[in-house]
Amino acid sequence: MTVQGNFTILPEGSVTTPRGFRAGGLHCGLKKTERYDLGAIVCEVPAAAAGVYTLNAFQAAPLRVTQESIAQGGKLRAMIVNSGNANACTGKQGEDDARAMRAVAAEALGVAEHYVGVTSTGVIGELLPMAKVLGGIEKLPQKLKADGGDDFCQSILTTDLTQKMTCVSVTVNGKEVHIAGAAKGSGMIHPNMATMLGFMTTDANIESQYLQQLLNKVTDNSFNMITVDGDTSTNDMVVVMASGLIEHDALHPGHPDWEAFAEGFQYVGQYLAKAIARDGEGATKLIEVNVQGAVTDEAARAIAKTVIGSSLVKSAVYGADANWGRIIAAVGRAGQPVDTETVDISLGDIAVLEQSRPVRFDEEKAAEYLKTDFIQIHIDLHMAEGQATGWGCDLTYDYVRINAAYRT
Amino acid sequence: MTVQGNFTILPEGSVTTPRGFRAGGLHCGLKKTERYDLGAIVCEVPAAAAGVYTLNAFQAAPLRVTQESIAQGGKLRAMIVNSGNANACTGKQGEDDARAMRAVAAEALGVAEHYVGVTSTGVIGELLPMAKVLGGIEKLPQKLKADGGDDFCQSILTTDLTQKMTCVSVTVNGKEVHIAGAAKGSGMIHPNMATMLGFMTTDANIESQYLQQLLNKVTDNSFNMITVDGDTSTNDMVVVMASGLIEHDALHPGHPDWEAFAEGFQYVGQYLAKAIARDGEGATKLIEVNVQGAVTDEAARAIAKTVIGSSLVKSAVYGADANWGRIIAAVGRAGQPVDTETVDISLGDIAVLEQSRPVRFDEEKAAEYLKTDFIQIHIDLHMAEGQATGWGCDLTYDYVRINAAYRT
Repeated sequence: MTVQGNFTILPEGSVTTPRGFRAGGLHCGLKKTERYDLGAIVCEVPAAAAGVYTLNAFQAAPLRVTQESIAQGGKLRAMIVNSGNANACTGKQGEDDARAMRAVAAEALGVAEHYVGVTSTGVIGELLPMAKVLGGIEKLPQKLKADGGDDFCQSILTTDLTQKMTCVSVTVNGKEVHIAGAAKGSGMIHPNMATMLGFMTTDANIESQYLQQLLNKVTDNSFNMITVDGDTSTNDMVVVMASGLIEHDALHPGHPDWEAFAEGFQYVGQYLAKAIARDGEGATKLIEVNVQGAVTDEAARAIAKTVIGSSLVKSAVYGADANWGRIIAAVGRAGQPVDTETVDISLGDIAVLEQSRPVRFDEEKAAEYLKTDFIQIHIDLHMAEGQATGWGCDLTYDYVRINAAYRT
Repeated sequence: MTVQGNFTILPEGSVTTPRGFRAGGLHCGLKKTERYDLGAIVCEVPAAAAGVYTLNAFQAAPLRVTQESIAQGGKLRAMIVNSGNANACTGKQGEDDARAMRAVAAEALGVAEHYVGVTSTGVIGELLPMAKVLGGIEKLPQKLKADGGDDFCQSILTTDLTQKMTCVSVTVNGKEVHIAGAAKGSGMIHPNMATMLGFMTTDANIESQYLQQLLNKVTDNSFNMITVDGDTSTNDMVVVMASGLIEHDALHPGHPDWEAFAEGFQYVGQYLAKAIARDGEGATKLIEVNVQGAVTDEAARAIAKTVIGSSLVKSAVYGADANWGRIIAAVGRAGQPVDTETVDISLGDIAVLEQSRPVRFDEEKAAEYLKTDFIQIHIDLHMAEGQATGWGCDLTYDYVRINAAYRT
């Protein structure tokens, strides 16, 4: 248990720690091995819900169905997810299939259809084997457990190597509320395949509109800061459900504990975002790019994303090569205002560029730093107050190996 | 000798085939091995000149000096180039060094300073070892030869594996004029290091302003179509020199042979662009992306660049995996208007998507096609008449190996 600012990290916590939630997973036959490929998070009451969805023109069918469900009353009882098949670019049949998943899940759980959201991740352009999927969904209710967070996490993985889950507690009106999240990434180095799913739960009392507002803000500083060049897959989605089972005054931006709640919420979002980046395909290192002194936060975000998205920067970090020329070149092509005379760059606490001039630094010490598994790149433009942080990972032989043979 | 449309390809031609040009190269000590690292193209008369330059905010010092030279009277006698050091992000000293290169070259060649352009390629952020560079420049005049095109080509390579040069002839007013070009690429998969240099020569009679107009247009359909996500390095530059030593009516857009000349000019630009893409770091295949049916040519260009820039598409081509889901996902995130119901995609002549619906295709035949070394991806949006073609290469283990250890 770690107290940090206004919230406490619960190392044993999961998406079922917030009151009212159960979760589970099973193998229905989408993955070739016996790994879980179908999962659910279910709330015992209608939970206030909010979601953010991919901007890709080819938005996958399940996202449209989930949006419809949430639009109907701002509440969800369950999120159903399958891995191994993205149900994207599957036309009318794909949409019918997503609706069938929702209908069968609603029936099996005994809830109204508009309380169910569905989502899929995996290969694009293949129809779901519906007999397997629907057969699995019918068995899901008996797999739900109060400690089913781990099972759920396993059910959403594709090429991910690690489960990604976290939970914090925050005090609201003197009562302890919980905020938890689980996510899957995988091809997040360039997240343009059916890629990133995030699920958050909380037992706080908060209306859907404020939950949406908070989710939008936190997404900009977390999940959206691990996307490269605005890349968004056909299936990217983050959904949050708030059971409201802790009794306290409903949260809104004027509530005295709003900031504490927002802080905890942001921690969960950023934890998951960083976990996805660290577990990028083939990755051996987490890279964090901090930009400050930009003309606006938006400019800082664009610059951070350009640096973190540069294959040459990623390759140099993999090779532990303090090649700052690639960093400055990426800053220069981000399309944002830059004063070419005032840029500072450091790798961890090793300054390599000051006022746009090379600094003599100890190459050996820099190489040693770059061999660690968490690399911070600090960039100060000294122009104004705009700042942002982005996360990514190194580019390795294994990225190429994994993606040269994804379907085969 | 191949006649193609209005021009003829001269397989033995080089940048010195157009009348009035000599070229050469030597080793001055910038590269560790004895390879050439300093070169020049020199014209016996002031040649009408035009250039296009990187849009990177951190434009390297030599580019500014070359722009100044051309601005003074629209003419050049010589282009000097060194490889191994980009003279980028080197501040005031870097600019002084670029000026010194120009001054010493002008003196050695006996021409006015504003007739000399300079350019550099290699590592960013290190000062040029000027004693070596200037000593080399003093020896350059005695290395110039009428058949020095090969030597020049060698002097501009860094991690390139092959020389890139071509020459065509066109008939203007019944007379044969020549258009030739040489280029270097290397890290062109993501061209954000000091990267792409192009040099074109012609003996046509054409004023600087029309030459610039033609160069701009051709650059948009050639060199700029191998850049990824608008990536432009600190040193990217293409310069063309026209000696005017073939006597014919000066070329301009109203000249009866303008189209023939423009066609030949475009061939040279596209030949060099494709050669750079094919020789991208670690590349084993040239990928061509043809987009048609887009709302505008600009939209088609953006889509072609997004597809050709996708690490996942590149990896799939390397692995000979007909993973069209990655192609459609890239189309969808290009930020351009797309009708999600009307997209056709084919790999060579193998249709994989029609009207946005998967087509059953022979996976074995597709894999066989993707194992060849020239892969065409055709995308038809069926919306309007916008079209574009882009070129790139596959993403391989060797790209990572090369870039993980570039400086060391």
